[in-house]
Amino acid sequence: MVKQEKFFIKFLPSGKTIKVTPNYNLRQAILDCGLDIGSSCGGVGTCGRCKVQLKEGNTDSRDSKFITNREKKEGFILSCQSKVLSDLAVLIPEQKKGRTKIKKGESAKEPSKVYAGICQSELSSVEIKPWIVKETIDVEKPSLSYGTSDLYRLKKSISENLGVSDCMIPLHLIRKLPEILRSKSWKVTVTVDKENMILIDIYPGSTPKKCYGIALDIGTTTLAMYLVDLENGKIIGSASEYNPQIKFGEDIINRIVYSIKEGGLEKLREVIIDSINNLIWKLLLNSHVNADNIVSMVVAGNATMMHLFYGVPPKYIREEPYVTVANKFSSSTAEEVGIKHIKNAFIYNIQGVASYLGGDITSGVLATGVSTREDLTLFIDLGTNGELVVGNSDWMMGCSCSAGPAFEGGGVKCGIRAIDGAIEKVWIDQETFKCHVDVIGGGKPHGICGSGLLDIIGEMYLKGVIDRKGRFNKDIGNKYLRCVDKDCRYVLVNGKDSTTGKDIYISEVDVDNLMRAKAAVYAGIKTLLEEVDLEVSDIEKIYIAGGLGKNLNVQNAIVIGMLPDININKYYFLGNTSVTGAYLSLLSIEKYRQAEEIAGKITYIELSVNMRFMDRYVAGLFFPFTDLREFPTVEELMYSMSNKLK
Amino acid sequence: MVKQEKFFIKFLPSGKTIKVTPNYNLRQAILDCGLDIGSSCGGVGTCGRCKVQLKEGNTDSRDSKFITNREKKEGFILSCQSKVLSDLAVLIPEQKKGRTKIKKGESAKEPSKVYAGICQSELSSVEIKPWIVKETIDVEKPSLSYGTSDLYRLKKSISENLGVSDCMIPLHLIRKLPEILRSKSWKVTVTVDKENMILIDIYPGSTPKKCYGIALDIGTTTLAMYLVDLENGKIIGSASEYNPQIKFGEDIINRIVYSIKEGGLEKLREVIIDSINNLIWKLLLNSHVNADNIVSMVVAGNATMMHLFYGVPPKYIREEPYVTVANKFSSSTAEEVGIKHIKNAFIYNIQGVASYLGGDITSGVLATGVSTREDLTLFIDLGTNGELVVGNSDWMMGCSCSAGPAFEGGGVKCGIRAIDGAIEKVWIDQETFKCHVDVIGGGKPHGICGSGLLDIIGEMYLKGVIDRKGRFNKDIGNKYLRCVDKDCRYVLVNGKDSTTGKDIYISEVDVDNLMRAKAAVYAGIKTLLEEVDLEVSDIEKIYIAGGLGKNLNVQNAIVIGMLPDININKYYFLGNTSVTGAYLSLLSIEKYRQAEEIAGKITYIELSVNMRFMDRYVAGLFFPFTDLREFPTVEELMYSMSNKLK
Repeated sequence: MVKQEKFFIKFLPSGKTIKVTPNYNLRQAILDCGLDIGSSCGGVGTCGRCKVQLKEGNTDSRDSKFITNREKKEGFILSCQSKVLSDLAVLIPEQKKGRTKIKKGESAKEPSKVYAGICQSELSSVEIKPWIVKETIDVEKPSLSYGTSDLYRLKKSISENLGVSDCMIPLHLIRKLPEILRSKSWKVTVTVDKENMILIDIYPGSTPKKCYGIALDIGTTTLAMYLVDLENGKIIGSASEYNPQIKFGEDIINRIVYSIKEGGLEKLREVIIDSINNLIWKLLLNSHVNADNIVSMVVAGNATMMHLFYGVPPKYIREEPYVTVANKFSSSTAEEVGIKHIKNAFIYNIQGVASYLGGDITSGVLATGVSTREDLTLFIDLGTNGELVVGNSDWMMGCSCSAGPAFEGGGVKCGIRAIDGAIEKVWIDQETFKCHVDVIGGGKPHGICGSGLLDIIGEMYLKGVIDRKGRFNKDIGNKYLRCVDKDCRYVLVNGKDSTTGKDIYISEVDVDNLMRAKAAVYAGIKTLLEEVDLEVSDIEKIYIAGGLGKNLNVQNAIVIGMLPDININKYYFLGNTSVTGAYLSLLSIEKYRQAEEIAGKITYIELSVNMRFMDRYVAGLFFPFTDLREFPTVEELMYSMSNKLK
Repeated sequence: MVKQEKFFIKFLPSGKTIKVTPNYNLRQAILDCGLDIGSSCGGVGTCGRCKVQLKEGNTDSRDSKFITNREKKEGFILSCQSKVLSDLAVLIPEQKKGRTKIKKGESAKEPSKVYAGICQSELSSVEIKPWIVKETIDVEKPSLSYGTSDLYRLKKSISENLGVSDCMIPLHLIRKLPEILRSKSWKVTVTVDKENMILIDIYPGSTPKKCYGIALDIGTTTLAMYLVDLENGKIIGSASEYNPQIKFGEDIINRIVYSIKEGGLEKLREVIIDSINNLIWKLLLNSHVNADNIVSMVVAGNATMMHLFYGVPPKYIREEPYVTVANKFSSSTAEEVGIKHIKNAFIYNIQGVASYLGGDITSGVLATGVSTREDLTLFIDLGTNGELVVGNSDWMMGCSCSAGPAFEGGGVKCGIRAIDGAIEKVWIDQETFKCHVDVIGGGKPHGICGSGLLDIIGEMYLKGVIDRKGRFNKDIGNKYLRCVDKDCRYVLVNGKDSTTGKDIYISEVDVDNLMRAKAAVYAGIKTLLEEVDLEVSDIEKIYIAGGLGKNLNVQNAIVIGMLPDININKYYFLGNTSVTGAYLSLLSIEKYRQAEEIAGKITYIELSVNMRFMDRYVAGLFFPFTDLREFPTVEELMYSMSNKLK
């Protein structure tokens, strides 16, 4: 087996370092490290804001119009267009305020600070106050004049040292109590759940004070897990895996349908629990953490995922009036839910809002700090579903806009998930209509993932391959358009250049599916805002989270009318905020309680029966929208491009 | 099999009825029924206060100097000297106030109201507010405009109907929730533990609102159990059994010693749990109660018994500084402690005070209302140990005086427990020194039980068979005294008249053991009182509970110097107050909480290291006491008797 090589990058002037795999995207490494870097185009090389100076080492960097010849000589490169080829030293120029940069003083609330596996020094700004604590305490020795029970004196010491009064001591621990207390002269180490006020374990003497937790996001498509040192907040390891339930249904609705079948619910529960057990096992193997020291796990996920995780029938989520059995489940032992390896751990979950606005969204709102700031923020989670929350510290309103799985590669003939071989970026030559593609992992492409689909639709529209209704323009001399009767396909990659040997293409049906998905997202945003008499121009920040949100080309998303046409600097791209919120809740009991408050505070709007949403949705079945005035910069762009063509 | 015959007794003017076995003691039937009857002599026919008038039926009644010839013709009899021979109608004359009668207005606190199996009408004065309630409730139906989760709406309904906010719903019930809620149009029956705020079970629709509980006293010698209807407080059935741990040790200390042996603790736990399971099974069989409807069990017992019940090592109870592992254990499920049949029940226990002042005493104090009244009361539980509590609503102080098992028949050659064949009452002919005995169940005697031992010692002393130091007077011509060298035995029953064919006798060693037991009790009482600068004359009431307390001849107990020489009317005899307190706690959450307060309020005095106690104990190794002035009526009695003899 060849050992995977890793490169060190040192960022100047901060001096922060990070270890990455060869060919890793340099801008992503900067973001991973929690450092500020301009990114208004979302990392596709069209804004020029992520310019950095290479001081040492080699990168594979594309040329750019934003780099002058002189700058090139001085080592300036666009970080988003650079792959890491060796150890590097990179100077990041001071970033201008008010752009994509995260403002100072807000750092503790910013999710970039808590990305997986990196820049743990940033965590000093998060107050670590986990609810499950392990502490060595002295218990008072009894005497003839102080003849209280062992239990009483233990409780007293827990109260005095940990601030947990009347801690519940379960029977199986009481049975061991007298010998444990006496074996190391009344010194014991206790693991206490401060939220539930219960003693989880007790050991004689002062065992090393190590305590770990697990943060888990159960996405419809992907599971993401962190193993966390609860003493310092350090992420010891992270792991992710596709949700194995996919084979029983790509989206939530299909999973629910499967769960209703004989044995279906149990099967769905079984495979997800197996997967989680595997992830835990993997993290344990790589970290050398003693499983007994893992004391808690916080799980976030949408309502259906949580129902399936807990083995609770999700049937009624799908039937009017669309209610969950529970938006939050009682905390339980690992054994109760079937989690192996970590028998001492208690399992907690992040409270959801409604059937289609789950704990993953609450967790994201927590991670992004939407609920604690005054500025009006729109939070968008673009996963298998599109969920939205708009608001600030005073109020919040949320909805789910059933975008469908198109942007995760579902419902599109050549759509695949964002795995190796997926086309993630597309650029169309205006003259020849030939597609230039970027493939994840390099090599031949296999299909198109969400960000690639968004790119291709945006490019197709901008370059005139399709019209405003999403129909192919057959009279522009596009030789990559292959039509058989009415069935037309725009070929991105020829069969000989793909791994499958078959063409990678987009059909009109695909365009239609994607149109409906983008229309649903925009209609959701507009409907939410209209409920509170606000305009898109009132939005001060837009946070985009979820699988798609990480690699999204925001300009294209605006061009096709999925995201509001507002100043591109107001957009922030965050990746998986659900696991970040779970991670924060694991670290701090206050954050966990805050998540509950958030869930209680968000007013849920059920869009499936909302007429305003339906109107907006229908109006969105155009590129970018029926009324072009809602997308002034797109209108302007189209105008300037048509002028260029003349 | 011959069916056991039963007789009905109707008491006038109250109209209350009771069913008893043939030959049942009539006074006991009156007490069983919670009715007031004079009993200052404790039922030995020497005070004449329990006079009643027989209106119908036949009794076997002894003549008495307290019944005139005219009264005899009118049907007057001493109830304590009467055995029931048929169905009866009995008029109980109005009882004079300030005697043994229970005062009006205090009735709810009086334990006589809650005796097993009888006079349930009296329970109307106890407010039934059990913590585990079963209630049929309507849960709001969800709608598009009210799309909260099933769990939320259930909790809301529980909160509104049962006053339990944020009730915890365990995962296994959440899993069944959606179907249960929907199967009977959102009508469900819930079983809720109001103390722990947890949902125990949920059924669709309105199942019959039946809810039962079990009150259990685990005595060192005997287990006593009630099966109780929690709706009306009715005792459906009661059962008792010897504590099967006896074969591993008669008293607490021997049980602890056994528990330290390899597998000893588990063995002790196993046999007691088996016994409890048997008792439950017996009650279930006789009552036709559905086991699923038994929702709670309250257990009271001394500290060692509770440790063994919960499988917690009692080792340190026996080692200085004599501490328990716990005075109160967390509530647990029936399964956790190994209780079968009643899988839906939660198990609670009554909090104890210290190693040698357990939950049985707290329970007794609760049952007798000592802690709620202003008058200074002395509570004595005479079981295998002698435990004392003195105090009132302002303060309480308690101790255990290690009386040893002599009064339960242990440590005395011919001593047996109070079973059929036990001599329970003794009277010595002053002229001949021949013993006249009453045997439990009639028939030939087998041995002497506690009350019989107390009688015999008192009588021996009064009639001059023994001297003040407990030594046999060999010069009074007592032909029932058989001496071989220094070893003398006073024969109560000749071998030919006993079931064993052997003499039933009392030796000097036996007298010595009983002397030490009585000395310990009295020394305990004195020490407690001296701690708070009080005299025996300050005591306003003395409650005597425990196995011995039921049949005790108080006059003899005073004669031998075990109980204080105060007005005999201040004594009350109560039987098993531990199970009564458990029963009250089962019925009322307030009583359960009150028990906790009581345990917290009692100041415990450890007598084993108390010099004052030791002095008092040594001073008590005389009949009645070193200083005769402490027992003025005994002195007077001895004086008058010696005059009579002259």
